[in-house]
Amino acid sequence: MRAAVYYGNQDLRLEDVPEPEPGPGQVKIRVSRNGICGTDLHEYYDGPIFIPTEPHPLTERKAPMVLGHEFAGVVTAVGSGVTDVAEGDQVAVEPIYRCGQCRPCTTGRYNLCQSIGFHGLMADGGMAEHTVVPSFQVHKLPDGVPLELGALVEPMAVAHHAAVLGNVGDQDRALIYGAGPIGIGLWFALRSMGLTEIDVVEPSETRRKSIEALGARTLDPTSQDVPGLIAERTKGDGVDAAFDAAGVEPAVESALNCVGERRPLVSVAIYDRPLSTPLINLVLRERRIQGTICYTSEDYRAVLDLMARDHYDFTGWVDTVPLSQVIDQGFEELRAGRRMKLLVDPTA
Amino acid sequence: MRAAVYYGNQDLRLEDVPEPEPGPGQVKIRVSRNGICGTDLHEYYDGPIFIPTEPHPLTERKAPMVLGHEFAGVVTAVGSGVTDVAEGDQVAVEPIYRCGQCRPCTTGRYNLCQSIGFHGLMADGGMAEHTVVPSFQVHKLPDGVPLELGALVEPMAVAHHAAVLGNVGDQDRALIYGAGPIGIGLWFALRSMGLTEIDVVEPSETRRKSIEALGARTLDPTSQDVPGLIAERTKGDGVDAAFDAAGVEPAVESALNCVGERRPLVSVAIYDRPLSTPLINLVLRERRIQGTICYTSEDYRAVLDLMARDHYDFTGWVDTVPLSQVIDQGFEELRAGRRMKLLVDPTA
Repeated sequence: MRAAVYYGNQDLRLEDVPEPEPGPGQVKIRVSRNGICGTDLHEYYDGPIFIPTEPHPLTERKAPMVLGHEFAGVVTAVGSGVTDVAEGDQVAVEPIYRCGQCRPCTTGRYNLCQSIGFHGLMADGGMAEHTVVPSFQVHKLPDGVPLELGALVEPMAVAHHAAVLGNVGDQDRALIYGAGPIGIGLWFALRSMGLTEIDVVEPSETRRKSIEALGARTLDPTSQDVPGLIAERTKGDGVDAAFDAAGVEPAVESALNCVGERRPLVSVAIYDRPLSTPLINLVLRERRIQGTICYTSEDYRAVLDLMARDHYDFTGWVDTVPLSQVIDQGFEELRAGRRMKLLVDPTA
Repeated sequence: MRAAVYYGNQDLRLEDVPEPEPGPGQVKIRVSRNGICGTDLHEYYDGPIFIPTEPHPLTERKAPMVLGHEFAGVVTAVGSGVTDVAEGDQVAVEPIYRCGQCRPCTTGRYNLCQSIGFHGLMADGGMAEHTVVPSFQVHKLPDGVPLELGALVEPMAVAHHAAVLGNVGDQDRALIYGAGPIGIGLWFALRSMGLTEIDVVEPSETRRKSIEALGARTLDPTSQDVPGLIAERTKGDGVDAAFDAAGVEPAVESALNCVGERRPLVSVAIYDRPLSTPLINLVLRERRIQGTICYTSEDYRAVLDLMARDHYDFTGWVDTVPLSQVIDQGFEELRAGRRMKLLVDPTA
């Protein structure tokens, strides 16, 4: 079968590899779509970062590795002992491997497992015609969720998890920094929690137009004084939660001027270096910065439920590219900022 | 009466000023001791910072101003309408003025009042033979709490409030960065909550010896790999809370490597500039940085109760200087780091 195999920095090869078969407790999936994640770009242009060059403690795998951790597909075979999934099921994959024994694992926070692994980074992933996963990673797609959109459950679950950590109520006011895929996912997640007062702060006009088309209200930090505006609107109270899905210094600085007392800035960005951070803004109003990463099955279930109720709108910001053009039409386009979110079709 | 009057940057004058008399709802106090706070040093060497040059919205006062917001004394007169305090009462003062109407005030967090003022910064304070405060600022000293130590309730309340925001249980493990007065106060506050596994990280040998003499366990970050040690001791789990009472970049960086998943670094320092902060360390383990400032009456009551039970040990790190020498023997000695905590005796 065809697969995009990561060998190292800027070395991703389209190869014919043996089709994997499911062992005990495993499920074989014919991949429908696999999303290209920022992490994949990092691995390609700056990596290897997460892809192990020594065997991973849980998967015992190292590079070369088939990329792809955001995917959905159809079950084509199951290994022995698998009873809750059957051939023909349409499924999304929650790609986390965990040890099950460390403190995070035993307290239900396996997204923080001390030996965490990801299918598509520490095991052969979804940028291939087929992939094999442990059955515990599988979530059935509810009726009404198109197979082609199942690859979007993963990034939406990242955003949902972050929204939960914002600890907001339906009367609350929120700010989202960054209108990329995670920012969009945050907007939908917060809307699902009943919030109506949400502003998305985004310097790129293209991205503002894109999220506005979905119904969002935006602010342009290059022409608007966001903290001043928020102070005026809230009579000095500030917003009840801010979310950083931009990962840049101006966003963090602005957010730490906009959040109300005892309220959080939730950080869901992968910061590639330390940022100059005005910690005094935390102290003077007892604000906090709360980190968040990945998701657990609760977020997957919540997102799948919302998708079944047609809560998400993927119009205008998600496109599909063929696996054969994954670098040129995929990675390069995303890196240049010409596309927002791309799914790979492994059959094309 | 004699008072230390702040006129501006490096202009603190010992003057004879009229003795204040209590109006309705006010209490006149003969000051026993007034602590010199880091804030006072900042006002003197770098200010004015908090001392208003225009009338403060709550107190209607501006410089020149009698300094001093950490003090205790004996009530010598009460104004009309004051029924809960009487002449002869020994009291500590909780020096916060608040509007009572903003969101923080109406939700019990008046330490975050949007118009907050402090007695000794926005009204004539305790570096004088007498001062007059509103009766709501007064806490009676319980039996067994020496008047001379009442001035220490304020800094201990700052530390107590920070300890509460650490959200720790008695089986938890904590790290304190900085063994100054607030670091010491944190150690006592956490001990009062039942914690036994506490390490104090402090580069100064003098300060380490000082807090060790009180019974604390210390780490020297200049010769010990604190994150490595903590990881080893906790088998990778990290500590349950860290507290930054140092306010420097190496402390924040170290703490963000030591705190466990979903655990806080509580910031109780006044950062004079933005720090380069590895926010990725928050994200990867869902840690948080929680700001904290001042206290409310709950912290005052808790500290007074602990002082009554002889929980605090002020041996070896608190000294008294005469008001007449407040600059030479007070500010200069503290600024040079030759003393830890100094109380001013306004009668000397």
